[in-house]
Order: sequence, then structure tokens, then C-alpha cells
Amino acid sequence: MQSVGTVAPQSLHFAQALPLRSGAQLRDYTLVYETYGTLNADKSNAVLVCHALNASHHVAGVHAGVEKSTGWWDNLVGPGKPLDTNRFFVIGVNNPGSCFGSTGPMHTNPDTGRPYGADFPVVTVEDWVDAQARLLDALGIRQLAAVLGGSLGGMQALSWSLRHPDRLRHCIAVATAPNLSAQNIAFNEVARRAIITDPDFHGGHFYEHGVVPKRGLRVARMIGHITYLSDDSMEAKFGRGMKADTLNYSTQDIEFEIESYLRYQGDKFSDYFDANTYLLITRALDYFDPARDFGGDLSAAFANARCHFQLVSFTTDWRFSPARSREIVKALVDNKHKVAYAEIDAPHGHDAFLLDDSRYHNVLRARFDNIAKESEAGKPVFKGVAV
Amino acid sequence: MQSVGTVAPQSLHFAQALPLRSGAQLRDYTLVYETYGTLNADKSNAVLVCHALNASHHVAGVHAGVEKSTGWWDNLVGPGKPLDTNRFFVIGVNNPGSCFGSTGPMHTNPDTGRPYGADFPVVTVEDWVDAQARLLDALGIRQLAAVLGGSLGGMQALSWSLRHPDRLRHCIAVATAPNLSAQNIAFNEVARRAIITDPDFHGGHFYEHGVVPKRGLRVARMIGHITYLSDDSMEAKFGRGMKADTLNYSTQDIEFEIESYLRYQGDKFSDYFDANTYLLITRALDYFDPARDFGGDLSAAFANARCHFQLVSFTTDWRFSPARSREIVKALVDNKHKVAYAEIDAPHGHDAFLLDDSRYHNVLRARFDNIAKESEAGKPVFKGVAV
Repeated sequence: MQSVGTVAPQSLHFAQALPLRSGAQLRDYTLVYETYGTLNADKSNAVLVCHALNASHHVAGVHAGVEKSTGWWDNLVGPGKPLDTNRFFVIGVNNPGSCFGSTGPMHTNPDTGRPYGADFPVVTVEDWVDAQARLLDALGIRQLAAVLGGSLGGMQALSWSLRHPDRLRHCIAVATAPNLSAQNIAFNEVARRAIITDPDFHGGHFYEHGVVPKRGLRVARMIGHITYLSDDSMEAKFGRGMKADTLNYSTQDIEFEIESYLRYQGDKFSDYFDANTYLLITRALDYFDPARDFGGDLSAAFANARCHFQLVSFTTDWRFSPARSREIVKALVDNKHKVAYAEIDAPHGHDAFLLDDSRYHNVLRARFDNIAKESEAGKPVFKGVAV
Repeated sequence: MQSVGTVAPQSLHFAQALPLRSGAQLRDYTLVYETYGTLNADKSNAVLVCHALNASHHVAGVHAGVEKSTGWWDNLVGPGKPLDTNRFFVIGVNNPGSCFGSTGPMHTNPDTGRPYGADFPVVTVEDWVDAQARLLDALGIRQLAAVLGGSLGGMQALSWSLRHPDRLRHCIAVATAPNLSAQNIAFNEVARRAIITDPDFHGGHFYEHGVVPKRGLRVARMIGHITYLSDDSMEAKFGRGMKADTLNYSTQDIEFEIESYLRYQGDKFSDYFDANTYLLITRALDYFDPARDFGGDLSAAFANARCHFQLVSFTTDWRFSPARSREIVKALVDNKHKVAYAEIDAPHGHDAFLLDDSRYHNVLRARFDNIAKESEAGKPVFKGVAV
């Protein structure tokens, strides 16, 4: 399978402040993005890919001269791949508040001339979607063939269908949920407490102290990792495998392979991820709840959506279980929206959405093939709105 | 239902060192214990109750002049209760390494004259069982009518049947497992890392610095709490309930009730629990694996057991799921041991073993009623061993 090859991020500055759901504004910000494939003449073949917690605009291909720089969804996006860049113009954009290039807490706060730190405004899924819509305006793209996202990215895809219903023809939301459960919020909160109570956090202004709250970031990442994997896949991969043949009888040394794996993941993450970004993104997850403005009625929330929907979930995902996707499907069916739903029997837990599982990829391949044919036929099917 | 009333802990000093599985010894130690009910003339009605991570010898009744001092299994143990103290002599003992009275890391290391701290020897489930057996020797009890425990306490009950097969007639193991899964170990490891990397841990010698690694203890307890509750019960109790009517849009303030609950639980725990004990007890959980000495063959591990077994699990317990209890049942059936197994449909997750659920309590009530009748008939049924 071919890759999109070497790619380079682009960036766009926005002088006009972005109004946020909190009432605050994001002033004077930059979005970093990448594109793959070619925008067709009538600009009808654009697909936006939304990222989750620990990802970025760098969806596919590699960065020149950077080792191990393959994009996070490279197995899905490329020439001949399920999201085929020979047919689609694919856009990946880094959300504001992140730490991979777009304006975030480590950048200068124009109000103070110092890094934002903990003063970076709280951003929501809706704010990200609005920022993405402005980027599309700047690229001259009125309507997307599709918005695709997994996990938190799936929430953005769903939010697109609600906030900008006439700007997308297909919403493809994978391994996602209509909101976080109490247990989901609980895991986020423990991770945040680990970061915030790390003495090196300095109330979120650690940049000025020349330190990083690595202890908290490590613990946060370890918790996250446990929730991304299924119990079964962890058992299959590590089980009770030991680092050595004999026990050390130590509370602090590594005895089991799973401990070694988690520590490694925590260490790696704490080297590159920003602590304030972790807080912001987990909070965006907590806040996402489109039914909230409709008295908790998810069906009412989706009343104004107009696009077609494809939902995908994975049987062993205990973070965003199939039951959560089915809630969304029910709300869509209640509204007589066009919806297809695939529940993939996969062992990998939440992480499955990032993996190359043939049943899963075949669902997306078929879906994008239909979308491409629809576009190529010149008259995309869409509830009452011309391209 | 009556209570055993006011009770007082007793203690016993052991001058003879306890040999530990690690090869080390525990010198010069004290065990704190409580008893309820009356030991009968032939000393055949004693029941040992083993405690889990965050519990102690104080199983039932209250301590004079201490508010909120009800024992941790008071709903189960007392006059007329499922484990009826009118019929049984019940013993609760605090395990060494704990922080509720028996010798632990906060006590003086006889080798150095300073607190043990991180130098407290690593103790295992087997070591605890041996310490408990010595206490019974001192009390003149040759054979127990039963050993009862839930969770880590259930592991001790199982271990009794293997290490001292002729010293118990019944093993009652609730909400337990034959060993920890990779996911179980992973959660323990994250909790340990939170404690060990807290700057106030001082390598486990924080007593000498006059501080307590409260940040780490809080995070550890918050993680624990999530795993004790079922997803459903957390959803039913907290859901997405908010602290206020409007959102604060803050990454650090409390927005959701579940956050408030977890922070409260973490704070409370960090006020009384010892950090070194947390490490020791989670490690004892990690290490428990009776099949390990038999090439992973659990059936072989149980070959020499002689007592009758009662296993209980709870449908929504995702920490020690029913599947884990069924592994034990299978190993017992393979050996043609007498075993009864109850899988209780309860919504409360792992915590269910501590709660007053009538279906669960009725199983234990019937079991103990049979055990009492067996003792009262004068000839307890027991594979080839006289009382």
C-alpha cells in the first residue's frame, strides 16, 4: 500500500478572535494543518479528519528528515487506502489548545506577553469545530464530502453535523460516545489531579520555572493507556509475564512486563506532551454533551442534522462501548436520518480505531467508495442542500 | 439486627521471627486482633475473617468512645447475622505490614532503631496466612470451622486451604481471583508510581522528614475507587450530575459530582492510610498466584486442599469478575473437591462484597448455618481428618 509520502505542515494565522462557548475569546491564533490529495474543481471532495487527545494535524505520510514520523492514521489515509487520497482531498488540522503547533498554552498570551499556561481559555469540542470551519472558509471549501474522527475526533464529527449541518454530507464517527460517563470523567479527573498536584506544575505556569510536571504526566498517561486497551488484549500481550525468572520481592522495582510497558509509555509521553494541553483536552471531553442544551434529549439534539451518518464501535472498547454508539444510532433513527452502524468484533479495546483491522477498514473503504462515487456523479445526495 | 456491641482489640507479641516467602524474616512482631462470640469447649467453632487492602482486625462492633467506628463487615458478623456470633467464635486479625496496629512500616525496625519505612520486608498472602496460623496456635485453636475473606481476603482464605489443609474445614472466598490479571497489576502499578514519585515519599522514609506523600495517596485511592465500583453504579449514583447549574469552564475547579466524590475519598484516605502499607499490600496482591509453583496449573495447585469451598462472585465486578471465580471453581472440580459457587446478580461492582445484599447474605447465612449444624452434631465432616 502506498503512502502519501513526504508531507509538510502549513499554517494559517487568524486575526479575528474566535468566540468560545465559555464566553471568552481566543485572540490572534494560528492553526497548523496538513492536506493530502488534490481538491477537485468544484471543491466537493474534501474530507476533514479530526484528531483525538494525543494526535495532531499529521494524519498521514512522513515529515522529511524526521525518523518515526509516520502520521497517526497513515494506515487509513493514502493512495488506494480506505480514505483514498487519489479521490479525496484530506485535511488534518491541529486543534487550538493542543501542543503540536496550533496556538496553545505554551504560546504567548497577547494580553500579558507571557506564556498562556493555565490561563489559556478553556476550549470545547464546539469551539474546535468552529475553528475548523474558519480554516475551511480560508481554503474556500464550502462543504465537506465528509468529516471523519475517532474517539474525541468522533465527537467533533458529530458536532459538525449539529453546528454546521449544511457544510458536510457525511459524518463518520468511530469509537465515540454522545458524552462521557461518570466513569470516563472519573478517570480524566484522576489524571488531572496527578498533574495539578505535581509540585512542578506551579499552578499551570511551569514554563516560567523551567520545569515540566513529568511525574503527573506519567501517571496520567499510564491511566489513559489502561483505559485504551481491553482487559483481554492486555492479558494476551502481557498477562503475568515477568521481567526476570525469579521474583525480586520489591515494591519499587519492576517485576511484571506490564509495569515496564506502562512506565515506558509514561516516560515517553512526559517528554513531549504538554500538561496544560492534557487538562484542556480532557476537559473538552468531559464537557461534550450535545443533549445538554435539549434537556438531556439526544434525539432532540440531532433534529437539525442533515448529513448521512456512519457509526463504528468495537466490541471490547470499554471506554466508549458499543452501547454508547447505539445511543447515537437511536437518536439518529428517531430523526429518520440516514445512518449505518457497524459493531466490529475486535479484541483491541478503544485503541482498535487506530489499528489496521480488515473488517473495520472494509467498512470505511466501502463508505468512502460510495461517497466518492456520489461526488464523481456530480450530484451528491444531500438533504435539500446543493453542493 | 443486633451488633456485637463494644469491642476492644487485643494484641500478641511474637518473639520468634516469621520466615517470609522472600527469604527475609519478620523479627519481633506484634499482631493486633479482635474476637467476637465464644470459643466452644472443643474449640471447633472458630471462624477466621481475613481483611483486604483497606481494612483491619476490626470486623464488627464499635470501639468505645470512638465515633463512626463500626467494624468493616458489621453487616455480616454479629448475633443473628449470617456469620452468627451466637454460634461462632469469630477472629479478625490485622496483617503485618498494615497500618492499623500490627507491626508495619511505621514501626521501629529492630535492626536499625529507626522506622522500617521502605525497608519493611515484602510480605505475601502466604506470609500473612502463616502469621495468622501462629496466632491460632497461641489461641490454642487447632482447626478452624472456616476461613472467610473477600477480595484480597478471599486470596488468604484460598491460601489457607493450600498451606494448612488440615487446619480448616471450610474456605469461603468472595469476590476474589486466582491471581491478578495484567489490567489489575497495571492499576496497582499506576497507584504505586503516584506514591513513589511524590516528592514527599522520600524513598519510603518520609516519617523521618515529618511529611506524608498525600498527593500520591490521594491519586492511588481515586484510582482504586474507580475500580471498586461498577460503571453502572457510578452512572446511577453520579451520572453527569453537576456541582452547579452552570458550567465554570475550568480545568481545575470541580464541575461534576463524581469529581467531588473522588477528591473527598482521596483526601480522607490520605489522612489515615500509610503509603508504605499501600505499596506492600498492592504488591502482595500482585504476587499472589498459587498456580505459579505448579507451572501455571491451578488444578495442580489445589490438589492437596481438603476443605469444602464456597465461592461467591458478583456480576458487575470488573476488578475480579465472575470469570475469575469460575477459574477457581474449575480447578476445585478438577480435584473433585466439594465446592458451591454463587454468582450474585448485583449492580455494585467489586464493592458488593462489603454491602448488605440479601441474595448474597442469604448464601453465606445458609452456608454458616450448615457449618454450625455440622459442628454442633459433634462430628464435622472433613476429608479424613478429625477435629
